[in-house]
Amino acid sequence: MIAVPTTPVREPQQDRSRATRQRLLEASVQAMAELGWSGTTVAVVAERAGVSRGAAQHHFPTREDLVTGLIEYMTEVRAAEIETAAAGLRSGPRRTEQVLVVLVGLYRGPLFRAALHVWTAAAVDESLRAQVRPLEAALGRTAHGMAVELLRVDEQTPGARETVQATLDLARGLGLGELLHDDTARRARVLRQWAATLDTVLPPSS
Amino acid sequence: MIAVPTTPVREPQQDRSRATRQRLLEASVQAMAELGWSGTTVAVVAERAGVSRGAAQHHFPTREDLVTGLIEYMTEVRAAEIETAAAGLRSGPRRTEQVLVVLVGLYRGPLFRAALHVWTAAAVDESLRAQVRPLEAALGRTAHGMAVELLRVDEQTPGARETVQATLDLARGLGLGELLHDDTARRARVLRQWAATLDTVLPPSS
Repeated sequence: MIAVPTTPVREPQQDRSRATRQRLLEASVQAMAELGWSGTTVAVVAERAGVSRGAAQHHFPTREDLVTGLIEYMTEVRAAEIETAAAGLRSGPRRTEQVLVVLVGLYRGPLFRAALHVWTAAAVDESLRAQVRPLEAALGRTAHGMAVELLRVDEQTPGARETVQATLDLARGLGLGELLHDDTARRARVLRQWAATLDTVLPPSS
Repeated sequence: MIAVPTTPVREPQQDRSRATRQRLLEASVQAMAELGWSGTTVAVVAERAGVSRGAAQHHFPTREDLVTGLIEYMTEVRAAEIETAAAGLRSGPRRTEQVLVVLVGLYRGPLFRAALHVWTAAAVDESLRAQVRPLEAALGRTAHGMAVELLRVDEQTPGARETVQATLDLARGLGLGELLHDDTARRARVLRQWAATLDTVLPPSS
């Protein structure tokens, strides 16, 4: 796919370079989600972004540079996604099932698929693992904080912290399950029941 | 690593062939767990199994044949693992936390890691997905049945079925989380709390 420039305004060199980098990063996430780890090369990403191979190599001289850029970019986008998802549910009473749908949404779609390919590659590559681990840990803390906030949980309540962690682990497990089967009805039933469980064992703090 | 034959007894041709195939399959799971999808080739597996390249190719002429053999073998071993894990907990009262440790154990270790590499590859390969999906679905039903039995759950209780499903999804999510971090203490806390939750919302049927 060749992207056609839509803006007639001549951008300054620096802005153009930033926009090119952004296009390459977006294309790299799509490529990782659709083609997996070994399919995501600088050449493939350049073509998908509609950027010349030379321009792509200016931003990412090696595949390693591309992967590093991709991992950082994915982390930023996923953190922003958590923020956006939370925004709509901040006011009003706790609506547990809706909160769960939001949390599960963090482990779905192209970003999650791309991340899964990176994690699986990192499982057999120690230096990649060292690169990914701190970013995932930070993202995990962000997701946890958001879940605590949206579920209106008092973390001083014994077991509350672990129940929120279990909720995020469940969401991750559902995301992995969806990789092979797209069983939307089953997922909805599990989440409805999970919401009822949370309302029983972890009532919202006032 | 070259395997040294330990038995001085001359085996009939057919038994030897079966033993060779078995060694190759075991080596293929280890290779998949340690090296990932692209590292698991007939040559690598032959070397790890201490089998000549020619003998390996007799059993698995192509990498596709090896992968098919590996997937079927993994499914059998995982089903047997479920059986073995359940056996020790069948009699006596329900011990929820121990049952959870068993269930989580199904999503750990080399077999789970190998399976994860296969799933991730299948996510971007439709024909592989078609091959893996029915086996995973059957395995999921076996695990579910075992969980229902060990947790002494009456599936007629509203929500019981979904809570058991959530428990298996949680176990899968914990397994995926372990790929990057080996946080044993955190996992133990989550499981202890989850056991308490199950004892509250899903008391064992008499």
